[in-house]
Amino acid sequence: MVEKRIPLAVSQAVQHIMNYASEGPEEYVSLESAYTRFLAQDIAADQDVPPFNRSPYDGFAIRAMDSQSASAEQAVRFKVVGTIGAGFVFEERVQAFEAVRIMTGAPIPLGCDAVVMLELTMNEEVDGQAFMSIKRPYTTGTNISYQGEDVKKGDILIEKGQSINPGIVALLATFGYAEVPVFRKPIVGIIATGSELLEPNEALVPGKIRNSNAYMTMAQIERAGATVKYFGKFSDDLAVCIDVVKEALSEVDLLITTGGVSVGDFDHLPAIYAALEAEVLFNKVAMRPGSVTTVAALNGQLLFGLSGNPSACYVGFELFVKPIIRRILGSAKPHLRKEKALLGEDFTKANPFTRFVRATIHFANGQLIATPSGFNKSSAVSSLATADAFIVLPGGSRGYEKEMLVDVLLLDDLQGSEWPWDNITKYSKL
Amino acid sequence: MVEKRIPLAVSQAVQHIMNYASEGPEEYVSLESAYTRFLAQDIAADQDVPPFNRSPYDGFAIRAMDSQSASAEQAVRFKVVGTIGAGFVFEERVQAFEAVRIMTGAPIPLGCDAVVMLELTMNEEVDGQAFMSIKRPYTTGTNISYQGEDVKKGDILIEKGQSINPGIVALLATFGYAEVPVFRKPIVGIIATGSELLEPNEALVPGKIRNSNAYMTMAQIERAGATVKYFGKFSDDLAVCIDVVKEALSEVDLLITTGGVSVGDFDHLPAIYAALEAEVLFNKVAMRPGSVTTVAALNGQLLFGLSGNPSACYVGFELFVKPIIRRILGSAKPHLRKEKALLGEDFTKANPFTRFVRATIHFANGQLIATPSGFNKSSAVSSLATADAFIVLPGGSRGYEKEMLVDVLLLDDLQGSEWPWDNITKYSKL
Repeated sequence: MVEKRIPLAVSQAVQHIMNYASEGPEEYVSLESAYTRFLAQDIAADQDVPPFNRSPYDGFAIRAMDSQSASAEQAVRFKVVGTIGAGFVFEERVQAFEAVRIMTGAPIPLGCDAVVMLELTMNEEVDGQAFMSIKRPYTTGTNISYQGEDVKKGDILIEKGQSINPGIVALLATFGYAEVPVFRKPIVGIIATGSELLEPNEALVPGKIRNSNAYMTMAQIERAGATVKYFGKFSDDLAVCIDVVKEALSEVDLLITTGGVSVGDFDHLPAIYAALEAEVLFNKVAMRPGSVTTVAALNGQLLFGLSGNPSACYVGFELFVKPIIRRILGSAKPHLRKEKALLGEDFTKANPFTRFVRATIHFANGQLIATPSGFNKSSAVSSLATADAFIVLPGGSRGYEKEMLVDVLLLDDLQGSEWPWDNITKYSKL
Repeated sequence: MVEKRIPLAVSQAVQHIMNYASEGPEEYVSLESAYTRFLAQDIAADQDVPPFNRSPYDGFAIRAMDSQSASAEQAVRFKVVGTIGAGFVFEERVQAFEAVRIMTGAPIPLGCDAVVMLELTMNEEVDGQAFMSIKRPYTTGTNISYQGEDVKKGDILIEKGQSINPGIVALLATFGYAEVPVFRKPIVGIIATGSELLEPNEALVPGKIRNSNAYMTMAQIERAGATVKYFGKFSDDLAVCIDVVKEALSEVDLLITTGGVSVGDFDHLPAIYAALEAEVLFNKVAMRPGSVTTVAALNGQLLFGLSGNPSACYVGFELFVKPIIRRILGSAKPHLRKEKALLGEDFTKANPFTRFVRATIHFANGQLIATPSGFNKSSAVSSLATADAFIVLPGGSRGYEKEMLVDVLLLDDLQGSEWPWDNITKYSKL
């Protein structure tokens, strides 16, 4: 009577899904709106930075050789033959014992090879002619920012798939990207299921709870870098549900449903997948929470059936949906970033399944420490508010003690991992 | 001739600015758009979670006492007296050797105190009446999610000033926040200065560079949680500049200028501050890069004069502007988050000033390691693209060696520090 489901190891489940992953199309956005988008092309330097030798300070440009006899006792005096502001070019070649007043960022005049900072000069005017004196010698190159010292023309500066941060914006501006090639944000649809669900603006009534999964998942979709399309809640009528899914699939890149994937009589998703002739890639994963996570494919498009339990839904999204989104956005490391951390407290109850424990991380002298963030049932919602990592505890017969080194997967991260699973799953009993 | 400026220790400069910090006004946004906003009120639980005792599985609700004699040899049979789906309430009290078919999330019927998972039951129908049998005893409480086990009514769940993450969205939905109280995003204005600046869409010409600071700072403003208003580039005419600043101040909460704060003849900012009768809080800071960072106050409003050099501008924003933004957004820890890290490579050149070295962080077995991210002059732009931290090197006569434990300030972080400066500046020679 009850459908028998074969649990898949997490790594295998992820691998099944990643077979459907590919880079999405690109689009151009203005530089002002490029922050947090994902670069769709490698950015190479089409010029040196700086583009010319320039002065890093306000001062005087001189020929260093003219300063060689200067000393505290015997200053050397230069005739000031001009002033050069940033953005302008001094047209003549500077001659012996001549100096040019130069502003920060201005090009070094022809003939000059050193800059004396303004505060180290003495200045006077004789018959309307300005003179500048210095009391120490300078070597060639003093206070000169050389062409190309920061970036050389042709250097690959940033590889595609990177999330654009403020520093990358600065580089894009420097290289003239008024319009920036980025990956188009995939559109991820959400449909909630469950007769018990009220919307947040509805008053509680006995037996019902408010729909937290859909809104939580919307935020996870945005954090992953995609755009949300919310289709509301399923009808109780199966035929209507099938139509809603069909329609939704035509409007989104990926479709998520929350709830309805268990083996209960009121869980419609298996029937919907069957009616659509979608191929169910898996419907049980050897993990806690989220074991009922189901993924189906239809004409190359993925349908994610996440659990109706908040923690299970949250974990399912991060493990299975996020890497697809990050691949569409060009990332070569689309999975959650895996690091090592010390376990912040005992977690002694053994469990045959790999567990993803919602955890809060902090540092002690630079050492990452991960502590379970509270109530850890699959139905928990409170522990998600302070979770910034999952502690991965391989299934087995033993518990885990405080200060053991464990694997953690970081949630607020833009770097990711190429494939975090092998080392984790080899401990699994499955 | 040259104005003599007295450098202030970083901690003192920050303290001067923080005297002007206060929480901003709140506004309400829809739950769908609350992600990444900052909560303006503490969120307390106005109900238990779960709000009633419920079933975490599909199965049968029973009275545990009726199962005590069940064994592999001798099953106990229950009469199935009804079915209860999530969202509904079973109205009668369950009697001896009766069971109710129950779905995940449904309330436990009156009289029942245990749930048997569906897959552990045998089912049959006799003359149209359903029966269920089990082969082991259950104890009171088996497979019941108790009212309030996740969250107790009255608990303070999240404190104001927190950035709203997906887990917090789930809590807000659970507690019926269709509209969420958040701090209004402060508006931060930017004016660029520098005759050498071209916009990103302009072709390079000798002596000029593209304006990277304004766009970079826009992204930093967004990362901090505020909204940008860009006023373009200053005119060369001082009177026009003064009018532009006056006008801008009436439209923004904070105003940033980039460049024009040095002692050079073409640096207008000191004259603008004087013309507006703004109080200059400081115009030199004992730090590298960014020593020319200037901050002035006018009628309680702050004017940030950041350096024209990209790295100096970047550092100045993160140290001085970001904490003001985060205080407006309600954070009790508005400063960059300070942690310890191992230095990833030698940084041997001594410097009398506190240095903020742009760095890339990674982990080795959970230990934070910070490595300078490249070319580190104040004019550098390339090193900013990979920077996710500043290494703080106190000024002094010694260099720093690989694997020394150093202070780092994290850039992509939402937690912050209350006051990161004391331990850092006590090493300073100033």
